[in-house]
Amino acid sequence: SYPEETKFLRSELYKWAGDANCYDKDEPYVEVVTSPNNPDGSIRGTVVNREGGKAIHDLAYYWPQYAPITSKADHDAMLFTFSKATGHAGTRIGWAIVKDKVIAAKMVKFIEVSSIGVSREAQLRAAKVLGVIADECRNTDVKGENFFEYGRRLMSERWGKLREVGMKSNGVFSLPKYPRDYCKFTGEYTDSNPAFAWLKSKEGLNCENLLRDESKIITRGGPSFGVDSTYTRVSMLSRDVEFELLLERLAAVRGTVNGN
Amino acid sequence: SYPEETKFLRSELYKWAGDANCYDKDEPYVEVVTSPNNPDGSIRGTVVNREGGKAIHDLAYYWPQYAPITSKADHDAMLFTFSKATGHAGTRIGWAIVKDKVIAAKMVKFIEVSSIGVSREAQLRAAKVLGVIADECRNTDVKGENFFEYGRRLMSERWGKLREVGMKSNGVFSLPKYPRDYCKFTGEYTDSNPAFAWLKSKEGLNCENLLRDESKIITRGGPSFGVDSTYTRVSMLSRDVEFELLLERLAAVRGTVNGN
Repeated sequence: SYPEETKFLRSELYKWAGDANCYDKDEPYVEVVTSPNNPDGSIRGTVVNREGGKAIHDLAYYWPQYAPITSKADHDAMLFTFSKATGHAGTRIGWAIVKDKVIAAKMVKFIEVSSIGVSREAQLRAAKVLGVIADECRNTDVKGENFFEYGRRLMSERWGKLREVGMKSNGVFSLPKYPRDYCKFTGEYTDSNPAFAWLKSKEGLNCENLLRDESKIITRGGPSFGVDSTYTRVSMLSRDVEFELLLERLAAVRGTVNGN
Repeated sequence: SYPEETKFLRSELYKWAGDANCYDKDEPYVEVVTSPNNPDGSIRGTVVNREGGKAIHDLAYYWPQYAPITSKADHDAMLFTFSKATGHAGTRIGWAIVKDKVIAAKMVKFIEVSSIGVSREAQLRAAKVLGVIADECRNTDVKGENFFEYGRRLMSERWGKLREVGMKSNGVFSLPKYPRDYCKFTGEYTDSNPAFAWLKSKEGLNCENLLRDESKIITRGGPSFGVDSTYTRVSMLSRDVEFELLLERLAAVRGTVNGN
């Protein structure tokens, strides 16, 4: 996570300053904006907005399968990852698009000093996969779904099934609602279908413990993300067989055990 | 390099303290021992040897193609790299053998926090290549040279040619001499044939500038390694065509230009 990564080596160059909404120091700052946000899938923008600050936009989840692409990404410093774009998390490839050449050069220098460079095998595989996907999207002669349309349909089906289970839970748990928006990539109004479901149990329950103790579902509780324990984060990107098992087990949760 | 890497993020956890031979602080310390040493190919051991210190042995070049394997590597913390073992530098895979479980766990944690993990493509390729080489070395039925014997013959031939050029240079440059020693891996007395040649020009010359200006040979001068400019480091691991060109150009150096 960003706080852990930032604090780990106790650099004299920077300190983790906590939630941007509470930041009131009159010092140079870097604000990290994760949009769509992990874990709640919401669309975010900078909140500090003062002179002397820089923003890093983490756009890991800004892909058509997860959210409507409402505008071209055009921030000063943007981070992307192969992991969320295509699911190749194990390749460990990400990329940045940065407007300021001086900052870009510093980022390259950091890669050089910390690891000399990124594995060529990983680069080759990522470049090939991304190339094939991009060619397919550009080529309008291709019949059938392109990669992102396929991903969007799959995510949409999964979210549909999950919402159905949520509605039948008699208020034991609920899911966030997202605004339908116009997606410039697909040319349609589309829904958000985030990579994580931000599940909320009814008040008084510890959602993470409830799911673990009643149903052996491993999730990551709200306190890990700075909110209360009625929330927990559930992955929506498991394999089909696991996802079906998740639905089955969630449907059986009665909310009678409170693992607090 | 170790100093650059250590200083880059200005950690509060450690400071680079310079040459171990000059270290006299009464504080906990970590000593890095590179053996065979880069750039001079010498065999090194710890020099501080006080209570409260830990040693990291960088054994990147401790392979039969570069040096006689005089004893089993059995230090507390040892670093290895695929790059120097087989030449697959671009794969960016290294490994450590560490006796203390607590330290090993901290190293795993560092990998997790800094990058979650190493590219699976790179791991698969390195594991496969190392497996094939290890199987070949273990299988005594295999005819002909194994990988390390092949590498040793090649390095030995290159060093032979380089030393010949050195001898014919009329003292313009000279090369280190290494003790022949018993190699437990090959079961023979073998020579050191380091991955770098640590070239020394005659006094008063700047070896790096001399090679660059007279012969367009790019090397890394002594001052980068804390010694005077009569020394420079030349790679012995280039491709055959480049290595032959290196010999040709070195043979033509007259030492009349002094690029100081």
